[in-house]
Amino acid sequence: MEPAYLLFDIGGTDIKAALAAVDGTLHTVLRSPTPQAGDPGAGAVLAELDVLRGRLQAEHPSLTPVAAGVVVCGTVDEHAGTGVFSSNLGWRNVPFRRLCTERFGIPTGFGHDVGTAGEAELALGAGRLLGEQARNTAVLVIGTGIAGALFVDGRRLEAGGFAGEIGHAAVPGGGDCPCGAHGCLETVGSAAAIARNYARATGTQVNGAREVLERLHAGDAEAQRCWNEAIEALSFSIAQLCASVGPEAVIIGGGLAQAGEDLLAPLRAAVEARLSFHRKPRILAAELGQDAGLRGAYLRAEAARTAGTEETP
Amino acid sequence: MEPAYLLFDIGGTDIKAALAAVDGTLHTVLRSPTPQAGDPGAGAVLAELDVLRGRLQAEHPSLTPVAAGVVVCGTVDEHAGTGVFSSNLGWRNVPFRRLCTERFGIPTGFGHDVGTAGEAELALGAGRLLGEQARNTAVLVIGTGIAGALFVDGRRLEAGGFAGEIGHAAVPGGGDCPCGAHGCLETVGSAAAIARNYARATGTQVNGAREVLERLHAGDAEAQRCWNEAIEALSFSIAQLCASVGPEAVIIGGGLAQAGEDLLAPLRAAVEARLSFHRKPRILAAELGQDAGLRGAYLRAEAARTAGTEETP
Repeated sequence: MEPAYLLFDIGGTDIKAALAAVDGTLHTVLRSPTPQAGDPGAGAVLAELDVLRGRLQAEHPSLTPVAAGVVVCGTVDEHAGTGVFSSNLGWRNVPFRRLCTERFGIPTGFGHDVGTAGEAELALGAGRLLGEQARNTAVLVIGTGIAGALFVDGRRLEAGGFAGEIGHAAVPGGGDCPCGAHGCLETVGSAAAIARNYARATGTQVNGAREVLERLHAGDAEAQRCWNEAIEALSFSIAQLCASVGPEAVIIGGGLAQAGEDLLAPLRAAVEARLSFHRKPRILAAELGQDAGLRGAYLRAEAARTAGTEETP
Repeated sequence: MEPAYLLFDIGGTDIKAALAAVDGTLHTVLRSPTPQAGDPGAGAVLAELDVLRGRLQAEHPSLTPVAAGVVVCGTVDEHAGTGVFSSNLGWRNVPFRRLCTERFGIPTGFGHDVGTAGEAELALGAGRLLGEQARNTAVLVIGTGIAGALFVDGRRLEAGGFAGEIGHAAVPGGGDCPCGAHGCLETVGSAAAIARNYARATGTQVNGAREVLERLHAGDAEAQRCWNEAIEALSFSIAQLCASVGPEAVIIGGGLAQAGEDLLAPLRAAVEARLSFHRKPRILAAELGQDAGLRGAYLRAEAARTAGTEETP
């Protein structure tokens, strides 16, 4: 009988679940579609966690969960242990930490998906390259949407769950956003936006930002334009962060980061061009990939086990 | 013989100096032009502090300074106790806390002018109305320039002195900025910019933003346009802060705040229009006025006296 951690990363599209060894090694990772809107108390989500837990334990009968880590999307109040609001999933003020602790019967840590993924990126990923610079670092996750974890003076900003919503700040050229605001970075700078804006301009459906990048390399001027527009928008928002929170490094994760230097090299130049006396951040790629959220859940499970009970009172 | 604090607020234009009772009551406030550029070691500034100290002590022979507080403009590293950089005044890496402690021979606290003014505004000014909301509050000082003190999760963001440079983040419609960047909020949203942009558009020199506001009330369409442009720019930058650091309140100080509801009412509407799921901040006027920097110096002096030596090691 080997001790293990039970980990859940509840995103807008799917739930990832894993059992991890106490050293962080992830065993089987399961995915399941997140039960969608009309679930204000998140009852359907919690029921799905039970199903996934059952499957994981059936696969690994020798592993005994001694703590759990649950991270969720949306607006999260980590101190209260609640999911305050998820526009995608429809919940409001769900006391996830308490509900999961009761359900699992083991110490359960709780956090925000992007926030804890950012913490994991600093502790276990690209942050290991940064030394003291990690104290002032922005981790941006750019995929379907865009969100950030902002670390300033060695602490992650929370603001009751409202900090880090970089994707929903306006940029020049931004369009109407499903969130209700106008001009949001997500409408131009996300992987989804690059593909959508290319399709809108050309009438050609593409398989994500990856295909836009392939077309760019093949000399497609419209692909180049959509890509550049995303770079400009991202650099605008990063420059805003440089002025307001002064990061020494910006770590780019999420699906778009798979573009590597095709993204990072022009982004560095575009950010540099926008700054003057500001501190110029290093811009580098995240290392943890799509399991970053589960790594964040791992950090929360570890903290909960160490505390012997809920992570924070 | 009454104990007192020796206070200095070293700004880009002038130095304010005061002796304060230990309860914070300011006695005579003196002003003197700040020795300008070409002073990398700030020797001329420090010499001027001696002159001002002499004048204050001659006026108040019964007051005995038991601690000093010095706050300076520019980029400031409060932990190191240094003025990192001032583009206006030309200094670089001046160890103000050490130099002032040696010079004055009493415990000397040190800080950033806008940062400590923001702390004073929370502790002694408008922040007293905010209760727990003060933990997540932005204090914006809008005058010749624009700078901010950002409080998140109950702490002021420092980032080695690079946080809070709201005036040097781009806004749509912003112009070339003397800082070297393009589009900075300061070029549209500051009191100086309102007057300058009005003069440029009409060929009529005006006596500051105050006169533009008077002309607006008299039905001057160009004055209305310049005012609106400033409101739009300020609301854009505040909305950026709402997305990144989630303030519950924004306190507006500096010269432009003297416009009162002529500024605040349209600014509230403009910010509201830019937000969706974001936390919507209260927007209110600062209370401390032009002595806010000296109040900040007072807080630092008080902390230095309590610590019995330099405020932070």
